[in-house]
Amino acid sequence: MASSSTAVAAAVSQPSSGGRRRRRPGLKLLLPLFFSLFLNVFFASYLFLSFHQPAPGWARYATTEAEAAAAAGCSGHGRSFVLRAETPVCECEACYTGDDCSWPVLDCAVDADGEDSLFLEPFWKQHAAGSSVVLPGWHSMNSRDGHRIISGEIERHIHLLHKAASNAMTDGKFIVFSSRPAELLNALAHAVSANNNSSTPPNVVEHVTSLNAREGDGGSPVIFDRSYYWPHYYPIAAPADEGIMLFSISKISGHAGIGFWWAAIKDEKIYQRAAEYMTSNAVIVSPDTQLRVLKLIKVMISEKGAGDIFKFGYTTLKARWSQLHKLLATSDRFSLHPFSPNYCSYFKTVRDPTPAYAWLKCEMDEDKDCQAVLRKFNIISGSGKLFEGDNRYTRLNLCMTNDHFELLMMRMEAMVSKEWISSS
Amino acid sequence: MASSSTAVAAAVSQPSSGGRRRRRPGLKLLLPLFFSLFLNVFFASYLFLSFHQPAPGWARYATTEAEAAAAAGCSGHGRSFVLRAETPVCECEACYTGDDCSWPVLDCAVDADGEDSLFLEPFWKQHAAGSSVVLPGWHSMNSRDGHRIISGEIERHIHLLHKAASNAMTDGKFIVFSSRPAELLNALAHAVSANNNSSTPPNVVEHVTSLNAREGDGGSPVIFDRSYYWPHYYPIAAPADEGIMLFSISKISGHAGIGFWWAAIKDEKIYQRAAEYMTSNAVIVSPDTQLRVLKLIKVMISEKGAGDIFKFGYTTLKARWSQLHKLLATSDRFSLHPFSPNYCSYFKTVRDPTPAYAWLKCEMDEDKDCQAVLRKFNIISGSGKLFEGDNRYTRLNLCMTNDHFELLMMRMEAMVSKEWISSS
Repeated sequence: MASSSTAVAAAVSQPSSGGRRRRRPGLKLLLPLFFSLFLNVFFASYLFLSFHQPAPGWARYATTEAEAAAAAGCSGHGRSFVLRAETPVCECEACYTGDDCSWPVLDCAVDADGEDSLFLEPFWKQHAAGSSVVLPGWHSMNSRDGHRIISGEIERHIHLLHKAASNAMTDGKFIVFSSRPAELLNALAHAVSANNNSSTPPNVVEHVTSLNAREGDGGSPVIFDRSYYWPHYYPIAAPADEGIMLFSISKISGHAGIGFWWAAIKDEKIYQRAAEYMTSNAVIVSPDTQLRVLKLIKVMISEKGAGDIFKFGYTTLKARWSQLHKLLATSDRFSLHPFSPNYCSYFKTVRDPTPAYAWLKCEMDEDKDCQAVLRKFNIISGSGKLFEGDNRYTRLNLCMTNDHFELLMMRMEAMVSKEWISSS
Repeated sequence: MASSSTAVAAAVSQPSSGGRRRRRPGLKLLLPLFFSLFLNVFFASYLFLSFHQPAPGWARYATTEAEAAAAAGCSGHGRSFVLRAETPVCECEACYTGDDCSWPVLDCAVDADGEDSLFLEPFWKQHAAGSSVVLPGWHSMNSRDGHRIISGEIERHIHLLHKAASNAMTDGKFIVFSSRPAELLNALAHAVSANNNSSTPPNVVEHVTSLNAREGDGGSPVIFDRSYYWPHYYPIAAPADEGIMLFSISKISGHAGIGFWWAAIKDEKIYQRAAEYMTSNAVIVSPDTQLRVLKLIKVMISEKGAGDIFKFGYTTLKARWSQLHKLLATSDRFSLHPFSPNYCSYFKTVRDPTPAYAWLKCEMDEDKDCQAVLRKFNIISGSGKLFEGDNRYTRLNLCMTNDHFELLMMRMEAMVSKEWISSS
């Protein structure tokens, strides 16, 4: 200390050549040092508080296990599970391989068939805290565990969900739900036919899956499948308001592995018959499933603005459709069906539809089987004929992971490039 | 710069009092500054890279919530759920009421009908740590999530479970499983009829649910329902070894709310046909369910001695049967079917069966409908006729909670006492 104060005294007492006051060189570094130290204390406290809070009690082991599995990461190309001796194991997404899923599979076929909605996975990872569920070992022992309470809560939250999305009018309507779509449809078909007052009950119940295609004679009872009528996919012109409307959790939250379908029913007698049918056929939804669905719906109705799943879904699909349109604008061989924008009461703006599936059409005479054409380019797509179109159409599921969509775009770019090469 | 170099020169040229070499004061701070800056970069990078991973400690909220729910206790007469604003809500067991389920319902009817196995609930509460599961928000988005890995593990653990219980020979056999018994039975019925080599496929497939009652002509394919063939309920004379054997999780672990049934199949062709049938009918078991079942089986095969679920189940039912036998030994009006003890290779001792259900017989001429007789004493029991017996028999499910069994015994004691009073 003595030597530095002497130096300071000497520095102060000697006039500098420019007449400037001499500052202690140490002071120039002190400020950044204190600021940097402060930052480190801040970071360390944040990490300490978030890491080292042990979860007290019985759920701690399961929590540690789950967090270890999540932390495994699998290079962002897979999902991890803790199976043996607390070692996470990765199950890789399509087109990746290796213990940590870091190796791309050469010449991998892109799977654009199927109906999963993994594009919503990043949303749930961002909302990990609020959306996760701890199932104690003794949960779901009673086949009717929490039935009255949780089922009542699910019904209440379904109403709130439709209100939040403004996609369906459910006030005053009744909700039934099931783990299997067939069970729900059977119950509804039974309920509407039993309800028919004519002496000859109807032998047709229409299940309308497309927004436009009514084929019946107008006399048959109708069940409207509104599974895709959410702001992720379509402008919500007005809330749907049919007598019986079907929805599924997988199309709104993306959880295709949780089987959960519900119907909103206007007529109380139809509702009662459907409910009785399900009770007498012992149709129950596992309390595990009910708890998970309740949690997911709570997150979806609580988030507004940037945390909104509808916005997340719409933004993602909009970008993908834009890429697709841009690419195919340069193609004579392939085309997409045109879209008409419409006002969306959810986003309060005019917007294009951003459907889950793209129907690609093969325009060339020789491309009679569009699915086969894409298969040559290592793209697996849905058959047009299977969906009552013709083989010139093929269906692409755009709701895949980011990785897989990038791969799809690469393959399609190669496909369109080949067209230019052939034509030149 | 001029001023500081002058000061440095001055500092260097003046001898210090201790004879020590004077260092530039700036240097003393440079090192800590660089180190601190390095730490800043490290922390910032870590936080940035972990942005797209769920925040550490993400499962903590769900853990706190679940533990709060469990701690609510509901006076030991109900189950609690955290539904609104982190407030546990109790759903009371039958015959209890009130916010905390502490009020018994006067003249409550004891429900001894049904098929739940809640007598095993205390076992799972004792094994809370190992048996609980954390389901992250992004679990089960893929309808085939972890299918290959987890399904393979479930199959492996089913084999281990049967080995541990020594109740079925499954070495070399194939396992299929489903969430719905009907789906599994349909797949098996399809598989065995398709497999039949004769020109006329069988029009009967026997589904044998009782250990003894074969009714077929010996020619039809048979599916043996071995759901109850566990040490909890029966002496395991020898491992069952039929061509197709059915089991369900609810009868071994008590989880009636988790739908999970499996079949052990000897013939590979039959197995392949059943598996193909299930695939083409999109029969999947939710990844949530698979993870839960895997956890439960792991606990059941890991525990030996005092922690053994088979011992727990057997001990509980043995005590209950003993009480029942003791009570009905004093009755002329009611009787139980007699038991023959047998050697049990699991417990390595001769023991009585301790079945899940007691078949009570009404011995008096005037008691033609035994179910109705018990109903007068506020006991709801199963109809004999429904189970292809006659109405002199009524079925009591003994696998209820301790509370409910105590209440059943009280009612039955009252019933038997009335007999003494009438006869005296």
